[in-house]
Amino acid sequence: MKVSLEKTISKYIDFTAEEFKSIRDCFKIKTLKRREILHDINTVCKYVYFIEEGIIRYFQVEDGEEVTGQFFFTGGWYTDLESFLSNSYSRQTAQAIESTSLLYISKQDLEKLYKEIPQFERFGRLMAEQAFIGLRKKTDNLTLLDAKERYLMLLRQRPKVIEKIPQHYIASYLGIKPQSLSRIRKNLVL
Amino acid sequence: MKVSLEKTISKYIDFTAEEFKSIRDCFKIKTLKRREILHDINTVCKYVYFIEEGIIRYFQVEDGEEVTGQFFFTGGWYTDLESFLSNSYSRQTAQAIESTSLLYISKQDLEKLYKEIPQFERFGRLMAEQAFIGLRKKTDNLTLLDAKERYLMLLRQRPKVIEKIPQHYIASYLGIKPQSLSRIRKNLVL
Repeated sequence: MKVSLEKTISKYIDFTAEEFKSIRDCFKIKTLKRREILHDINTVCKYVYFIEEGIIRYFQVEDGEEVTGQFFFTGGWYTDLESFLSNSYSRQTAQAIESTSLLYISKQDLEKLYKEIPQFERFGRLMAEQAFIGLRKKTDNLTLLDAKERYLMLLRQRPKVIEKIPQHYIASYLGIKPQSLSRIRKNLVL
Repeated sequence: MKVSLEKTISKYIDFTAEEFKSIRDCFKIKTLKRREILHDINTVCKYVYFIEEGIIRYFQVEDGEEVTGQFFFTGGWYTDLESFLSNSYSRQTAQAIESTSLLYISKQDLEKLYKEIPQFERFGRLMAEQAFIGLRKKTDNLTLLDAKERYLMLLRQRPKVIEKIPQHYIASYLGIKPQSLSRIRKNLVL
């Protein structure tokens, strides 16, 4: 079921109906089929995407293998912030894991909203803070925990990933081989 | 030489003299000796710190060894954002590498400024975005590059680290042993 952009934003900030209309008018619609690429490595990521329904993952290629960086679900936001802000080539590929409906906004329109609706800056700050915390949690888990602990942490912090994502993507997110993930899961059940 | 808080903030935002006075009044002063701890693991990081002069590093302990997460120089900002925002126990220790003068602000005062000076939200957003990009660059370098490439990238992107930081901290930041760093440096000179 689709999640509303208005409800999602108004969890953080109170906008007037008129302000929300200005915001909504800046977003365009895009749909992706399962496995379709949203943006590719070595291109500039020009938009911020809101996921009305579906799942996006991004991955990087390391020693010829895909390493999944993160999963983004219905109601979430995705961009390659570095590429988006600095117009640099992206070092990652973003792909739909299932059929996905997106709303997306350009940098120009985002800057316009920041100027016209000062409250929107607050929303931008909260999003950037959440993105930072999510990335720190993930990298801390990769650095400080072993594979089994990482799996248990994922189960506790983000059970949605375990429920909804194919095993081989979860393994590539945890930095382990699919066989190791199967072994960990099997040992936990016993 | 000390860097001014006013000049640093006004690079991003134009404040009136009165607004800047409100901002400055929220900050308190702290000085640290070389190697003194700013905040420790398993305590809540309650402040955002501006480095007027000096160097801060944070580290985590992995398999009994210190792993340096990042270095913050004169004119920069430091906090453990996750601990600060969610009042959770920090997973890192922050320490002065040399004598360091700081200005610091509490969460309550920061929230007050966000409310009173809408422009300040913009500053907060830009800081959070920069923090995210810095962390992504660092984790990408750790994931995608080998030790020699990581050293060369550091030399290119942040020569200040090479100039000012003791070798053993640089090695722990690059995720290698001090002997490996010496070998890399020696081979580059030859």
